Amino acid sequence: MAKNLKSSHLPTSTRRSHGDAGEKLKGLADSVAQMAFKQKDPTVDIPIRALSNVEFNEKTRTIEMGGNKQERNFFNYGQAKRFMQTLLVASKCKDLIDADKTASIRQIYYMAKHTIKGTSEKTFDDQAESDPILEDLEVAINSLREELHIFASNRGNLVGPITLVDDGNTLDCARMGSAGYAVPSIVEPDTVQFKKCDAKFVLHVEKDTVWRRFHEDRFWEKHRCIVSHGGGQPARGMRRLLHRLNHELKLPVYVLLDNDPWGYYIYSVIKQGSINLAYESKRMAVPDARFIGVSSFDYDRCGLSDDVKLDLDANDVKRAKQILDYPWFAGKKPWEKEIKKMMSNGFKMEVEAMINKRLTYLTEEYVPMKLGDKKQWLD
Amino acid sequence: MAKNLKSSHLPTSTRRSHGDAGEKLKGLADSVAQMAFKQKDPTVDIPIRALSNVEFNEKTRTIEMGGNKQERNFFNYGQAKRFMQTLLVASKCKDLIDADKTASIRQIYYMAKHTIKGTSEKTFDDQAESDPILEDLEVAINSLREELHIFASNRGNLVGPITLVDDGNTLDCARMGSAGYAVPSIVEPDTVQFKKCDAKFVLHVEKDTVWRRFHEDRFWEKHRCIVSHGGGQPARGMRRLLHRLNHELKLPVYVLLDNDPWGYYIYSVIKQGSINLAYESKRMAVPDARFIGVSSFDYDRCGLSDDVKLDLDANDVKRAKQILDYPWFAGKKPWEKEIKKMMSNGFKMEVEAMINKRLTYLTEEYVPMKLGDKKQWLD
Repeated sequence: MAKNLKSSHLPTSTRRSHGDAGEKLKGLADSVAQMAFKQKDPTVDIPIRALSNVEFNEKTRTIEMGGNKQERNFFNYGQAKRFMQTLLVASKCKDLIDADKTASIRQIYYMAKHTIKGTSEKTFDDQAESDPILEDLEVAINSLREELHIFASNRGNLVGPITLVDDGNTLDCARMGSAGYAVPSIVEPDTVQFKKCDAKFVLHVEKDTVWRRFHEDRFWEKHRCIVSHGGGQPARGMRRLLHRLNHELKLPVYVLLDNDPWGYYIYSVIKQGSINLAYESKRMAVPDARFIGVSSFDYDRCGLSDDVKLDLDANDVKRAKQILDYPWFAGKKPWEKEIKKMMSNGFKMEVEAMINKRLTYLTEEYVPMKLGDKKQWLD
Repeated sequence: MAKNLKSSHLPTSTRRSHGDAGEKLKGLADSVAQMAFKQKDPTVDIPIRALSNVEFNEKTRTIEMGGNKQERNFFNYGQAKRFMQTLLVASKCKDLIDADKTASIRQIYYMAKHTIKGTSEKTFDDQAESDPILEDLEVAINSLREELHIFASNRGNLVGPITLVDDGNTLDCARMGSAGYAVPSIVEPDTVQFKKCDAKFVLHVEKDTVWRRFHEDRFWEKHRCIVSHGGGQPARGMRRLLHRLNHELKLPVYVLLDNDPWGYYIYSVIKQGSINLAYESKRMAVPDARFIGVSSFDYDRCGLSDDVKLDLDANDVKRAKQILDYPWFAGKKPWEKEIKKMMSNGFKMEVEAMINKRLTYLTEEYVPMKLGDKKQWLD
């Protein structure tokens, strides 16, 4: 029954992913040079990354950036330093792409930091200066960070009947040992290709300890699925991989998180993207993801004992109210009921608490029951 | 040149690791039952886990627990609850062993939590009550947590020419993709076996971003070694694996950490164990580990620019002085020079800062130089 995937999912000739980021960086540099040659003030247009320039697109069901931009000019006392920093980071990214190497955001900071000749002035005093510049650059040339050859932390693992090619190594993710396949930070198609997939869906859980429960109980084998975790809020690599599994392989994505505001938030980020990184939603978000639990209604529905209750604190209530107000939750009746029920319960519940019934309750009863009853899914 | 390993490293019949922990738990229960049948006060002896009962053994070069114990009695108003909790956790661990399953410390808490019949009293109010009980149990029956079938977080990765069998899957760690082999929390010989090793040594680095630099630059291939990271202070699984690579395969372990008190501390934990978990040193520590950098003397030695300097703060200085006073550092002249030099420098340096010279300086010049000059190693 295994699905062998067609060649578009197979390795391409280049090892690192950069789309056409190298060309775009060159375009940016050319345009600045042109302005200088024409004796104009060299300028870079930077789209504005702020809540004021973010909106929820009802059609794509993702959080998107608006069209507002600001100019960053060289001949402006307040902008000259950031203008210089922008071009410096751009030039370091171009170096990485040309060398077919990648670097962390900290490594980019150290690469770009030096003393400006003839002064005692540093190009950067702190990584807090270079990180936002990197995000500016991403939006300015409309490239993902990964395409600029910048990596974040590796975090998250998965197990299940899918064969990948990662960095040239063919990996059967059903046979990767007790910690599973380590999801790298960069999973662009040039680095990670799907070779064969026999999974019917993806179950994404919050924590590695929950994930291990599912792996040990061979959930992925019995249900022919991929089980993944993000070690808390999923890092970019895991989000991008979920997006690719959903969009390219058409695998439904089900999400199992703690019944608390943090769980709702993680779901929201997986589903429609985050406010901070709104410009990446189209490459990261999984609008078809479904929340299968833990729901505020499960306490009664599953006959749980009060051993599973954790008191809501003032911060939880405040956060829950904020989430209710997000445009992508507001107006969705089932979500309003869910979040309000948590507040009226006065307690939250962790996925691991389901084990209070018995060790295998979570994997052999609770989740199969959830998957079998669409009415319990939240969209 | 590959070394095929003899059968003692190959899979045994059981899937999970428990040594004879199941028998020991039964012995503990039998002894309590015997006392009850003889109408004596049921008692469990718990070795004391505190700084007062820890010492540095000059011969084994590890931090060890002393022989002081305290009784935990059933007929003692102040001890009855903890006595009950101890036996409850013990019984849940026995259940795990019998079922050939494992659980996280959070899962054990939820498994053992219930309302005591006829009262409104909970067996545990918080995981902060069950965690120390679990540690008590480990020392009381002299078994590792992993042998009680309890897992911690999966953290850390490695790459290099070694073939392992993990949970029945044969894994060539040189071909595990861009994030490498994910080191699980439990790496006892029943779960993880060494099948073939062509590595000459292990280079352990602190962070995954540094690790990725070494992986991408194919350091492990050029130098025929294993490169591992622990994602900060290494979790139990990584420490235990370093111990096994060193003790069973006789691979030298070199450690590369940031030049700051936290780096010194991580080295200390890898080398001689930690104070909190002193009873595990003999299974976790790597007394032959060598610190190869970053050293306080590298600033001048390597002609680094002041871009790499990070100011020491008051807390760093305080922590450095504490570390100087640890018996396992005190009296070691090279370490005293190293730590005092950091304080007189007035700055600390990160491994990633070496990239300020150029992207491949760290992997192609700095570390090869360090490995080639024993005089620069710290013991």
